[in-house]
Amino acid sequence: MKKLYHGAAFYPELWDEKTIKEDIRLMKKTGINIVRVGEFIWSKLERNEGEVDISYLKYILDLLYRNDIEVIMCTPTPTPPIWFTHNHEERLHVDSKGRKMVHGSRQHVCTNNEKFRKASRNIVENIAKEVGKHPAIALWQLDNEFKCHISECFCETCKEEWHKWLEKRYVTIDNLNKKWGTLIWSELYQSFNQVPQPFESTPFIHNSSLSTMYRIFHREKIAEFASEQADIIRKYSKTTITTNAGLEFTTDNELLFENLDVAGYDTYASHETPHAFTLNCDIWRNIKKGKNYWLLETSTSHTGALDRHAEVHPNGYLASEAVATYALGGEGFIYWLWRQQPYGCEQSHSAVISAWGKPSVGYKNVLEVERARKRVEEFMINTEYTQAELAVAYSDMAKTFLLTESHKKDQYRGLITDFYNNVLKTGIHRDMIPEGFSLDGYKLLITPFMYYLSPEYFERAKKFVEEGGVWIVGPLTGGRTKEHTVNIDAALGKNLEELAGVETLYTYPMENSGATGEAFGEKAPLKLWSAVFKLNGAKAIGILKGGITDGEAFITENKVGKGKVIMLGSLPYGEDGDRMLQKMIDYYAKEVNIYVRAEVSEGTISIPRHDDENIYEVVVNMDGKGGNVLIPIEVFDVLEKVNIPKGELRLGRYEYKILKLNKNNRKSK
Amino acid sequence: MKKLYHGAAFYPELWDEKTIKEDIRLMKKTGINIVRVGEFIWSKLERNEGEVDISYLKYILDLLYRNDIEVIMCTPTPTPPIWFTHNHEERLHVDSKGRKMVHGSRQHVCTNNEKFRKASRNIVENIAKEVGKHPAIALWQLDNEFKCHISECFCETCKEEWHKWLEKRYVTIDNLNKKWGTLIWSELYQSFNQVPQPFESTPFIHNSSLSTMYRIFHREKIAEFASEQADIIRKYSKTTITTNAGLEFTTDNELLFENLDVAGYDTYASHETPHAFTLNCDIWRNIKKGKNYWLLETSTSHTGALDRHAEVHPNGYLASEAVATYALGGEGFIYWLWRQQPYGCEQSHSAVISAWGKPSVGYKNVLEVERARKRVEEFMINTEYTQAELAVAYSDMAKTFLLTESHKKDQYRGLITDFYNNVLKTGIHRDMIPEGFSLDGYKLLITPFMYYLSPEYFERAKKFVEEGGVWIVGPLTGGRTKEHTVNIDAALGKNLEELAGVETLYTYPMENSGATGEAFGEKAPLKLWSAVFKLNGAKAIGILKGGITDGEAFITENKVGKGKVIMLGSLPYGEDGDRMLQKMIDYYAKEVNIYVRAEVSEGTISIPRHDDENIYEVVVNMDGKGGNVLIPIEVFDVLEKVNIPKGELRLGRYEYKILKLNKNNRKSK
Amino acid sequence: MKKLYHGAAFYPELWDEKTIKEDIRLMKKTGINIVRVGEFIWSKLERNEGEVDISYLKYILDLLYRNDIEVIMCTPTPTPPIWFTHNHEERLHVDSKGRKMVHGSRQHVCTNNEKFRKASRNIVENIAKEVGKHPAIALWQLDNEFKCHISECFCETCKEEWHKWLEKRYVTIDNLNKKWGTLIWSELYQSFNQVPQPFESTPFIHNSSLSTMYRIFHREKIAEFASEQADIIRKYSKTTITTNAGLEFTTDNELLFENLDVAGYDTYASHETPHAFTLNCDIWRNIKKGKNYWLLETSTSHTGALDRHAEVHPNGYLASEAVATYALGGEGFIYWLWRQQPYGCEQSHSAVISAWGKPSVGYKNVLEVERARKRVEEFMINTEYTQAELAVAYSDMAKTFLLTESHKKDQYRGLITDFYNNVLKTGIHRDMIPEGFSLDGYKLLITPFMYYLSPEYFERAKKFVEEGGVWIVGPLTGGRTKEHTVNIDAALGKNLEELAGVETLYTYPMENSGATGEAFGEKAPLKLWSAVFKLNGAKAIGILKGGITDGEAFITENKVGKGKVIMLGSLPYGEDGDRMLQKMIDYYAKEVNIYVRAEVSEGTISIPRHDDENIYEVVVNMDGKGGNVLIPIEVFDVLEKVNIPKGELRLGRYEYKILKLNKNNRKSK
Repeated sequence: MKKLYHGAAFYPELWDEKTIKEDIRLMKKTGINIVRVGEFIWSKLERNEGEVDISYLKYILDLLYRNDIEVIMCTPTPTPPIWFTHNHEERLHVDSKGRKMVHGSRQHVCTNNEKFRKASRNIVENIAKEVGKHPAIALWQLDNEFKCHISECFCETCKEEWHKWLEKRYVTIDNLNKKWGTLIWSELYQSFNQVPQPFESTPFIHNSSLSTMYRIFHREKIAEFASEQADIIRKYSKTTITTNAGLEFTTDNELLFENLDVAGYDTYASHETPHAFTLNCDIWRNIKKGKNYWLLETSTSHTGALDRHAEVHPNGYLASEAVATYALGGEGFIYWLWRQQPYGCEQSHSAVISAWGKPSVGYKNVLEVERARKRVEEFMINTEYTQAELAVAYSDMAKTFLLTESHKKDQYRGLITDFYNNVLKTGIHRDMIPEGFSLDGYKLLITPFMYYLSPEYFERAKKFVEEGGVWIVGPLTGGRTKEHTVNIDAALGKNLEELAGVETLYTYPMENSGATGEAFGEKAPLKLWSAVFKLNGAKAIGILKGGITDGEAFITENKVGKGKVIMLGSLPYGEDGDRMLQKMIDYYAKEVNIYVRAEVSEGTISIPRHDDENIYEVVVNMDGKGGNVLIPIEVFDVLEKVNIPKGELRLGRYEYKILKLNKNNRKSK
Repeated sequence: MKKLYHGAAFYPELWDEKTIKEDIRLMKKTGINIVRVGEFIWSKLERNEGEVDISYLKYILDLLYRNDIEVIMCTPTPTPPIWFTHNHEERLHVDSKGRKMVHGSRQHVCTNNEKFRKASRNIVENIAKEVGKHPAIALWQLDNEFKCHISECFCETCKEEWHKWLEKRYVTIDNLNKKWGTLIWSELYQSFNQVPQPFESTPFIHNSSLSTMYRIFHREKIAEFASEQADIIRKYSKTTITTNAGLEFTTDNELLFENLDVAGYDTYASHETPHAFTLNCDIWRNIKKGKNYWLLETSTSHTGALDRHAEVHPNGYLASEAVATYALGGEGFIYWLWRQQPYGCEQSHSAVISAWGKPSVGYKNVLEVERARKRVEEFMINTEYTQAELAVAYSDMAKTFLLTESHKKDQYRGLITDFYNNVLKTGIHRDMIPEGFSLDGYKLLITPFMYYLSPEYFERAKKFVEEGGVWIVGPLTGGRTKEHTVNIDAALGKNLEELAGVETLYTYPMENSGATGEAFGEKAPLKLWSAVFKLNGAKAIGILKGGITDGEAFITENKVGKGKVIMLGSLPYGEDGDRMLQKMIDYYAKEVNIYVRAEVSEGTISIPRHDDENIYEVVVNMDGKGGNVLIPIEVFDVLEKVNIPKGELRLGRYEYKILKLNKNNRKSK
Repeated sequence: MKKLYHGAAFYPELWDEKTIKEDIRLMKKTGINIVRVGEFIWSKLERNEGEVDISYLKYILDLLYRNDIEVIMCTPTPTPPIWFTHNHEERLHVDSKGRKMVHGSRQHVCTNNEKFRKASRNIVENIAKEVGKHPAIALWQLDNEFKCHISECFCETCKEEWHKWLEKRYVTIDNLNKKWGTLIWSELYQSFNQVPQPFESTPFIHNSSLSTMYRIFHREKIAEFASEQADIIRKYSKTTITTNAGLEFTTDNELLFENLDVAGYDTYASHETPHAFTLNCDIWRNIKKGKNYWLLETSTSHTGALDRHAEVHPNGYLASEAVATYALGGEGFIYWLWRQQPYGCEQSHSAVISAWGKPSVGYKNVLEVERARKRVEEFMINTEYTQAELAVAYSDMAKTFLLTESHKKDQYRGLITDFYNNVLKTGIHRDMIPEGFSLDGYKLLITPFMYYLSPEYFERAKKFVEEGGVWIVGPLTGGRTKEHTVNIDAALGKNLEELAGVETLYTYPMENSGATGEAFGEKAPLKLWSAVFKLNGAKAIGILKGGITDGEAFITENKVGKGKVIMLGSLPYGEDGDRMLQKMIDYYAKEVNIYVRAEVSEGTISIPRHDDENIYEVVVNMDGKGGNVLIPIEVFDVLEKVNIPKGELRLGRYEYKILKLNKNNRKSK
């Protein structure tokens, strides 16, 4: 990493030349060193079908380059021009209710339509060919927020592709029938072309396998579309490629980024839940291992559209976001958007500059970010983020399964965010790691809500345990097969139960069953589809009191090789449940001697970085209430260049500091 | 009745031979003496159109018979195979929003489609012919839960059938126009084929007659479909025929069971509302007079599907359900289902055995049911249920009218359940009787919410009153004509008002009108579309205080022959309203000398049975809190074989007892 | 004005001759002197296509005329007969979700369909020709509640008309593209016929210009339809023409009534919000300047339909409504309806007479209205309503803009009703005036929520200020252009900001931003999309405390000519906010010496009228709690013919009085 980027999305195509020049002047004054260009510009470049003219883009790139502003060059595929869909209704996206989209918004076409793929390839190739080597370009962004507004398409093209995909996956229809158990309700198919798309128009619910596979099919197809664009760009450009993904979109991000170079994402987390902001950093950092990530969109003050808006960020919050982003491994901190839109549907969304060219309500916070960026840039460039010792699995496959089977409307994103917050509150530094991520270097692994535990994952986790790691499994984890059916050898799979030294006696919905969980000195209510264990070698750690399985275990511990497998059969919740979870994590973190942690008050985070000589903690107050950090020994304040004695260090509202420790000091804590 | 059945739904078609044999071993161990087979098995028997092969079914029946397990043989018509609908979209069910269903769930085809009727007849006839005389079969069940997921179909076939039905009912379009008052809003039809189906796509609401008639048309057609199946089976089998109906489904159950032999139903009432469970028993017992009924589906612990689940039953509740079911006239107590589904969408639904072949969380309660069944079987076989003296009309026609005209979203099922609960709390034994049921033997008749009071019913009730009965009429009762229009001779019809000695002054929505009702020493708020009476011979029993009709009567009493007609013009609600209703019922019960009642605490029920010698009370605590029964004289505990002295008898949590009284003792109370 | 009308809607076509005659007898007894006839009668007059026969109507008119009952003659266009749509699906209304309506309700056809326009013209012309000069007719009513159930149609006809309309408005597609900023999201159109209808089926929100223009297009078309009918009628009749509009319908009422003669409307405001009732009077009075208005529909007791009903009016409320209606400039007070409907879907709606021909629950209140009408008639005929000095702009264009851009679901009707209530509570008499209304005679002008401020309006208001008026501008006012885009010269437009002596620093959503507004001695929370001002000559009146723009102004005052411009940048809300608004209005009312006001307690209104000699106040208690009026000098009670001394005058529950003052007395207050 050579510098820290501070940028904004820029739409010169909407403005006249004079305004564009004024914008560039203001950007330089503000400290914007990179702009995102082009993701909705298709109509400007190909006004009539087949008549591509990239000269406007070249003009903009030249202008920016001359002004030392770098560019994130986007492909304009989220918004095909009107000529693509006018009189071609069959090219439009169809949703699960069968509604065909219309032109005028974004993502209104089927990305699996071959005509669309061809038109996309053509515009992308023209852009890449013409500007691929332009020195202004620092990064490519594919499309914009794949699947942010829509999820699976249900058009006729998708029907055909679905049948091909099924045939590739299952080879014979008998195999599919067997795997999905289609003799249930006489669903039985005679050929792949009979398998329906799971439209939301059935008297009751679709087969879980059908629903989940349709989701997986679409996640694979959108990754294929992204990959196809990346391949074209690489023919003409050596610049790094990313896209702006998001935790709430219906993509499998590990797959989506497989053929891309660095991770990129958008987040508009509320300042009232700063843990939802750092969750993003802790996930996206690990989507492309060893690469810095890019925060490609966040607001200067508030989101807004014709029918909604969020609350404004309080003064000071934005800089705390920026410092946390950089310290947690980010290279870019980019706003959506530079200049308020006068048109469209997002006029009320905050920007850097108003539609009439004046500082927006968030502007002074943007200046504060720029001051912070300059203060921390040298440090960030010369140090590296330090891998955590605690890893929590983040799985878009689990998210996909829960979309099909949510029980009581519990969705993965909410569950994992709350779980993450409990980890954060322990002060232990953590990585959120995708399923394919190496377990090397970790001491404690937690895999909550992973309904389907693949044999590959199981084997890796088993080895991790055998070599000394502690693996906390559940809730939900292991409860479903690859085909989204229930295991028939053992509730959570024979392999897992054997490794954990348990037999699952029962699975049932624990909430309001009369049972309370007791563990780690806490009593807490439990929820979620839950498993209750019989001990086959394991020892009971958490016991149910009351309810229909009074006295049985819901948390167990089993020694395996040099490590342990912990089964967490249910989800403690509420204040008491949060405390129980935090105590559990803390307990096992101590057992495996996790050092990379800090004693910080809630709302303040501590981020470990290091260089060859020293280790550092970047501490940031993110809740605006100020906070405390316990300093175990005297440290050096890198920014203020003073020593800070051991003891409680007080941070002001949204304050941040960089503390230098001797490498060996941490372990002495 | 020769025995008490304890059973479960069984889907051998989903499992291999080894598992099936293990299942049979476990059933015998558990005490399951009957299984339900085949309701979704069509694809297994007719994998390709026209190639019917019943041998698998024979194999299963033989196997079960050899193991002394009887069978409820189902017709598989709720789930036609894929070949029936693939490339035949016109055969699919269309809902009121115009959405065409897709294959993969249940009830996705139009049951009025002639191709479907033909295919159904064919598979039913094949099954009946091949296994109709199989000795394993104890009962036939038609289809599965007719209209449980869907209500009226709006396809093109239904349009044609609708027009034919209208022509049959009204003969001329002028007659229809007159009856429906179609000059309103220029609806006027020139021919039957112009009459629309009441799709949910009108700027405002459809004509009430149109909506209600479309519902009635469909209720008649589904009964016709059931009847057609019954007729085919009877050609080959002498075994009793039923279907598993349900109070929440959109059927007219009196009509549906007209050509069937015994009543059958499903209920998954929550253990928190045990009155909703006994309501079912008290209704279904009377759907086929003099026959025992079958509870064909209930859960061992909780319902569940991909997107929802109920709370688990507490330990002990299940056996209280079973004893109540048998004592109230039930012959079978059947679970859905034997073995947890690994496939489909109901994996989280409780079963007897888990998908991996182990006892489920409800298993020990199933064993408790079996112990109870054995304890009470001899008693139940040798005694008979004793008809109540209090009858409450249960009307699916009233339910149909309220679907069209719900005022403030008040639906019949909720209204009648709450009303029933008030009856239950008085301790008076009650029958819920369908419209066509004889009034012989009753002393007190209540007909709440019967918007349309047919002349036949009126005449029967009038005779009942003249001969000494007390008839409580309302709320709502009589307010609409057969065509779902407002009476124009008198608000509740001239005949009724004359009989009741009143003139309805006004009808209006009473809730929040400022009025309080006063009657039977209670003051209570009132709700529902209400009638206010002028006395034309009757005397005022309930008076309105405040509001816009201050001082007028809302409850009246009129002597007619040897009996009385009581008008209940509005619905008292809340705690005070419930108390008022209970006092009213109690008051008139005493007046007509109702003996069949018990003094039990809330949550405990008392069920009267008798043999030639003695009368019995089966007392069951159903709320899990234990309860008290006042014993007027010394009784004999049939199960424990001890005498119990007069006075308060305490029942434990979910405890049940069978108490023997001398026949003459009751009357001495 | 020659008399006060008291009437009801009458549907003789639903009843037999005997009932009609009985109805007329009862009307005369009740005091009904006018009935509304014919708005749904099309099928009766043209049972088969092309066979028009008006004789039934003539018969009814003759009958009424002979009985001295006048008639509001309606055109029956809301309900075309079945022959119009049967087998002509393309004539049906299509809603924004693409749902095609079905026959059987009202407004189910596209009013832009040329076949419909032709059929409408034909029936209207036939009626006008045959009965246009009938002496019974006192008023024509076009159609019934244009656009009450539906809003914009999305059928194919409308698509074509939409493209024509766009071409007329924008001339070239390049012009449209520029005005709408369609380079955003590559929306860019190549021809008018590509511009979509804004169906509710886009992944995200439509362009604001597209949505708003589609709404305006439809408001113009329905006005055109009304105008077309008026022109036909005028060929045959000299009688006054109106229609029954409504504040909640999707029409532009200023436009709708442009070619009509007097204002007419329906309201069913709850008695719990009497200000919502008088809001109607204060608006509709000014839709046709100098003409009396007609309240064409209100309920005698409660609204009702199959699935809903409102609460009954308490006794006494109806007469207070009638007196307020007449005193505020109304000529007619008409019920919907005369006799309860036995058919259709509105059976539970209150009427004067029940379906069985007896007084309804509201009947005695109707008699009370009639007594009041007789008491006040002479006074009302001989006096005139006195124009207010305070005007609040009422803008259906603003309502249209807010439908597109509601931010947090804040719709115009709710906002303006609450704002009006604050004005009402000051006791200052007020006019709600449409955009085109003259500002002559006013001293204080308030224009809240007018997102688009037209240059014409701006110029008129500027002149008003220069000549000494005070203009309170905002919230929201001026924030959007004619094309529903954001201004790019200044947040609220350069002209307005210059006149107001301010520069808008920021616009942002104020709610929950941490800011409190301080002004007029009050502190209040603020909400709505808000503007914060820098003073360029103006002085700060309201200051923000806390939040992200602490210390900036949100209310400013600027002297201009002899008057002032007040900017109100945000909306104070809650009890404190209401008090702040009332104090602000009161403050400026005093500054401009507003005399036409009264000191009345909340829930009581005072209505100024005058003749050549005297001025009068009609005081009415409308909340049923009674109220107080401060009498500055001795006055004369016109109805009781007694003097009332100065001081507090107490009014009873729903009581009204007419007080006479000497003309010069008011000013001495």
